[in-house]
Amino acid sequence: MSHSIPTPSVPAPDIVRCAYMEIVVTDLARSRAFYVDVLGLHVTEEDDEAIYLRSLEEFIHHNLVLRKGPVAAVAAFAYRVRSPEEVDAAEAYYRELGCRTERRSTGFTKGIGDSVRVEDPLGFPYEFFYDVEHVERLTQRYDLYSAGELVRLDHFNQVTPDVPRGRAYLEDLGFRVSEDIQDSDGVTYAVWMHRKQTVHDTALTGGDGPRMHHVAFATHEKHNIIQICDKMGALRISDRIERGPGRHGVSNAFYLYILDPDDHRIEIYTQDYYTGDPDNPTITWDVHDNQRRDWWGNAVVPSWYTEASLVLDLDGNPQAVTERDERSEMAVTVGADGFSYTRSDDDGSPEGFKLGSQL
Amino acid sequence: MSHSIPTPSVPAPDIVRCAYMEIVVTDLARSRAFYVDVLGLHVTEEDDEAIYLRSLEEFIHHNLVLRKGPVAAVAAFAYRVRSPEEVDAAEAYYRELGCRTERRSTGFTKGIGDSVRVEDPLGFPYEFFYDVEHVERLTQRYDLYSAGELVRLDHFNQVTPDVPRGRAYLEDLGFRVSEDIQDSDGVTYAVWMHRKQTVHDTALTGGDGPRMHHVAFATHEKHNIIQICDKMGALRISDRIERGPGRHGVSNAFYLYILDPDDHRIEIYTQDYYTGDPDNPTITWDVHDNQRRDWWGNAVVPSWYTEASLVLDLDGNPQAVTERDERSEMAVTVGADGFSYTRSDDDGSPEGFKLGSQL
Amino acid sequence: MSHSIPTPSVPAPDIVRCAYMEIVVTDLARSRAFYVDVLGLHVTEEDDEAIYLRSLEEFIHHNLVLRKGPVAAVAAFAYRVRSPEEVDAAEAYYRELGCRTERRSTGFTKGIGDSVRVEDPLGFPYEFFYDVEHVERLTQRYDLYSAGELVRLDHFNQVTPDVPRGRAYLEDLGFRVSEDIQDSDGVTYAVWMHRKQTVHDTALTGGDGPRMHHVAFATHEKHNIIQICDKMGALRISDRIERGPGRHGVSNAFYLYILDPDDHRIEIYTQDYYTGDPDNPTITWDVHDNQRRDWWGNAVVPSWYTEASLVLDLDGNPQAVTERDERSEMAVTVGADGFSYTRSDDDGSPEGFKLGSQL
Amino acid sequence: MSHSIPTPSVPAPDIVRCAYMEIVVTDLARSRAFYVDVLGLHVTEEDDEAIYLRSLEEFIHHNLVLRKGPVAAVAAFAYRVRSPEEVDAAEAYYRELGCRTERRSTGFTKGIGDSVRVEDPLGFPYEFFYDVEHVERLTQRYDLYSAGELVRLDHFNQVTPDVPRGRAYLEDLGFRVSEDIQDSDGVTYAVWMHRKQTVHDTALTGGDGPRMHHVAFATHEKHNIIQICDKMGALRISDRIERGPGRHGVSNAFYLYILDPDDHRIEIYTQDYYTGDPDNPTITWDVHDNQRRDWWGNAVVPSWYTEASLVLDLDGNPQAVTERDERSEMAVTVGADGFSYTRSDDDGSPEGFKLGSQL
Repeated sequence: MSHSIPTPSVPAPDIVRCAYMEIVVTDLARSRAFYVDVLGLHVTEEDDEAIYLRSLEEFIHHNLVLRKGPVAAVAAFAYRVRSPEEVDAAEAYYRELGCRTERRSTGFTKGIGDSVRVEDPLGFPYEFFYDVEHVERLTQRYDLYSAGELVRLDHFNQVTPDVPRGRAYLEDLGFRVSEDIQDSDGVTYAVWMHRKQTVHDTALTGGDGPRMHHVAFATHEKHNIIQICDKMGALRISDRIERGPGRHGVSNAFYLYILDPDDHRIEIYTQDYYTGDPDNPTITWDVHDNQRRDWWGNAVVPSWYTEASLVLDLDGNPQAVTERDERSEMAVTVGADGFSYTRSDDDGSPEGFKLGSQL
Repeated sequence: MSHSIPTPSVPAPDIVRCAYMEIVVTDLARSRAFYVDVLGLHVTEEDDEAIYLRSLEEFIHHNLVLRKGPVAAVAAFAYRVRSPEEVDAAEAYYRELGCRTERRSTGFTKGIGDSVRVEDPLGFPYEFFYDVEHVERLTQRYDLYSAGELVRLDHFNQVTPDVPRGRAYLEDLGFRVSEDIQDSDGVTYAVWMHRKQTVHDTALTGGDGPRMHHVAFATHEKHNIIQICDKMGALRISDRIERGPGRHGVSNAFYLYILDPDDHRIEIYTQDYYTGDPDNPTITWDVHDNQRRDWWGNAVVPSWYTEASLVLDLDGNPQAVTERDERSEMAVTVGADGFSYTRSDDDGSPEGFKLGSQL
Repeated sequence: MSHSIPTPSVPAPDIVRCAYMEIVVTDLARSRAFYVDVLGLHVTEEDDEAIYLRSLEEFIHHNLVLRKGPVAAVAAFAYRVRSPEEVDAAEAYYRELGCRTERRSTGFTKGIGDSVRVEDPLGFPYEFFYDVEHVERLTQRYDLYSAGELVRLDHFNQVTPDVPRGRAYLEDLGFRVSEDIQDSDGVTYAVWMHRKQTVHDTALTGGDGPRMHHVAFATHEKHNIIQICDKMGALRISDRIERGPGRHGVSNAFYLYILDPDDHRIEIYTQDYYTGDPDNPTITWDVHDNQRRDWWGNAVVPSWYTEASLVLDLDGNPQAVTERDERSEMAVTVGADGFSYTRSDDDGSPEGFKLGSQL
Repeated sequence: MSHSIPTPSVPAPDIVRCAYMEIVVTDLARSRAFYVDVLGLHVTEEDDEAIYLRSLEEFIHHNLVLRKGPVAAVAAFAYRVRSPEEVDAAEAYYRELGCRTERRSTGFTKGIGDSVRVEDPLGFPYEFFYDVEHVERLTQRYDLYSAGELVRLDHFNQVTPDVPRGRAYLEDLGFRVSEDIQDSDGVTYAVWMHRKQTVHDTALTGGDGPRMHHVAFATHEKHNIIQICDKMGALRISDRIERGPGRHGVSNAFYLYILDPDDHRIEIYTQDYYTGDPDNPTITWDVHDNQRRDWWGNAVVPSWYTEASLVLDLDGNPQAVTERDERSEMAVTVGADGFSYTRSDDDGSPEGFKLGSQL
């Protein structure tokens, strides 16, 4: 168990939302084919080293940067803050935490101005910026609207060994918890945390970390997600559909997980709920509830629990991964040592073993 | 032209969102049939005098109160504020504005605690509250999910003669403008303003006021709205469909306007866009752009421009209505003296007169 | 009143379905932009004179031929018959009727083999063929699936002055009536007739004819139709949306009417019902029922009643148009001399005048 | 290998479509809760022994009969024929085949008149009828339209050991093949056969039989199927979702398989394609193509291959089940001895083992 992360004395930066992720890909053309030709993200700008992509309704320069590099990994989880001054606040906050920080007045990527990147206490490369180039918001460009159109960046999902430790750190940073998964012994398996008024801007998934579990884009409706599956079938890349589509228990969103050419995981996501009230009710799910991850009780494939992307330090080297020493969600819910129930009866014993009847 | 409304020296209350509307209906049973049996809103509580209704994903006591009374009108536009102290702030704010206020520690309706109601400078009955009874959030109660399910209260829409005056007042109150409709002479016909991260919590529509133009509920998808039309057809009340369904230019939402038994107008609305960034781009539409109100150029029926509900003062008497003395949107866009174009050509003359070819 | 059309002594050809329409357009490039770039029909083949288009799920060569010509008109309503011999049957049938016929063993268009074209008793150019080139059925080519994808040709709609006369002729030809519109005096305003198991392969609309009212393509779902509207808005051609979208009373389909660059009317249509049983119930609508044409009671624009495309004789000259001398549906339902009701009360007087309250 | 079934000298009855299934359930109230309360089928009539249910757009008395009995099984697969005389034809046809037949002029169930039931050569209880009570077609009763509304009976699916033998028999009976699954050695694993203009009225699935694999109802759109899953989640019966939702390779339909309280399997199905042309292309799938059963490559659960309902003889006793002696689809596609590929490369070796990477 790692030591808890101290709460800085200076104010946390006022984060608006998750804004973009920078990922390193090993073959830029191959990744372009996936993100642009298959998924239909819109190219704001590109060169031999990087491609800047945005979703339909975005008005800032990008939501995703694909950068060519030798090792597939994540270079930055970037958040937008409320004002230029909040970049200063972020820098001061992480300095007090003793984290390595790097400030660049002209930004780390095209389209972004003054920003700070940090190696955060959990080992993730976080970026904070306000200044950004506005670009055409394509909201009503229905002439460009594909049948599986991605309209917004929705959230990040990070793998970290000690979820409560990470949760306390992110709460200090101003995130609020919408939902979590626990067991009756108080072990926390995952937590969903937000700044904007959705279920999350980022989530922590318990596991060996720091790693990036997925980055999620939203569609308008459920049929848009089905079309993405159908198109991947037509392109004979259905083996890149990892899990879903399905309805999440947590968040209530309709979802799909797919894998990019470097095995970075992308979630397509739609229709979670409003969380903007200060007393928005927090929902805790029992880890043994078989509807928590999929409301229809469909099986979570093992790779979804075990695989994730490396993250980089500020020198561009992969961060070392620390093993989770608490119970694993997969182990406690699947297989010989685990169990999952569909419903509980009065005396507390679980019923309706869907997984057990299938595997 | 009325005098402008001064900016108080005390801070504006921190408003979270539009939370509920209280409307007076003349026949409670008939209104119940409309809101519960036709629209499927969920009854939190009811008695001989009032019915408290909420949308599927709501966790506070109600989004709509139907109160029996002699004259169909609106008794309150209620906003939730961020903390109990913000109710004090609201009271102080309106007192400084010289408005009549009334504070009730046990609330004006069931389910709500300490609140203040005011007769605001535009003549509307506004309420501010924090304390509210939490009720079951029905988000995942798909066993109760109707084909035209209303999932959230989305916004109010108010008719006022002098839109810039109202806009300045609401900006002082902390609302931010997402979109508006103007002409080339600078006349403003309508403005959309938000606190939560959607296009609006309320909008001002230029016209004789104070009156309530409509209250809007959101669905998840477009087909839910179509189902409401289909059901009204099946019930042979299609004459209560006033306008739509259609796609708004302003807000980009898919919409429908229907009329309740007292002619209170309800909008059903889905899929506008995220406005939470501090520099969210504001969109100004030309009043002559025939796609501003309906992206498909379908005609706005005259009643939609001219009809609206009375609002009450704090004694329950209808507020006097003041005529708009600026140009009317209907007059400048429809008929002999008005015009609307589908597109502009290079020399500035409009083209594509859809309305003209139909009327 | 014209004389009735005799029933031939030879058997009617066994018609499978409406298969394609050949239309003359005055600017091939401009029409291509509409049908291919806006509507997304798939080009099977094209040259300087003609473009052959098909819908996604079609396996025969084309559903629509755009042919360059001096006068916008319809050159053929083509039906597929069950076998090569049925082309002979068609030829014999129309010869007995005294109609001009023309047989071409290599077809009138590319992709089609042995066929016969006739000037039918109502003045329409009908074609009958069996032999056709099979092409790739794109049903699962979701990589080509646009957000407003047209998946099938659904039906034709023809304007003719004397609907009962035309109905009797088409019943002799093997069509079965699914629905019609009448008044209490027995005047018939329109009739829907099918061979395949949908509501219609063609319909007769009372009016000055012979003219082509529209040709209809089907989508999978309602949102696909909404997308077509949204796209036309984005392209600033919303003035080419003539009517809808809406829900038909007749047929129960969700619909949209748009106009091509030559004012040929296209319907986009989805989700009518199965009619394959021999005793499929026929539905008769009262012409004054305001939900017959639009289940939501939305107004039918006058142009929809009055405008239609010319049709050609076998020499390529426009057929003369004969005026309808019976009552016009528009006249009896709209305006000073007409009326439409939303519901009937017990004593037979209509109620709920939606049109009246709007115009 | 059984002997092939002779082709009778008398004409096959002219079958219109699959019309209803009669199933025996062990607890009528529990089955009613499932079919009426969960699935929303409409009760035409019911008593202590049986419940007669229909889908929204049906105009004949029922599509499903639930009959109380000691052993869960299927009592009849009932087809509608084109005329009363075709019932005679059916009787003569099966008599020539040497099958046991039973004729009842007043029908075997309420609402149906003169009919014949047979024990067909594959051991299934088939019924043929024309005379049936017409009931209200609820097509436009959108006031009754649930979010997961079932609008039509679509097809049956039967398990039989020898698929080619069954196929030949059904082709003699007038069914036409739309699709099948084979391997490169010519083994047939399943075949889809139709009378009405959809992909099937019934299908044969290779396995121990005669057994009933499933009966399928259609929805209008994909979201209706998702709602059924969501509702089953809300009711905490997600363990009764057996497989899906997904997109079929075969038929291209969007699908879901669920289990009733007696483990009778129900498919919910939408959007296959038109098959009415005489030369409708037949599609043969390779059994090793991992997209044949699910276009997205999602795993087929073993129970879907192995479990099915017993069928009854005309005395109401379960038919003996004969084992399939050819290869099983599950064995050749899953596990140590089987394989499935996502795509084939040029030299014929399969690639993209999705199943292999997950199990």
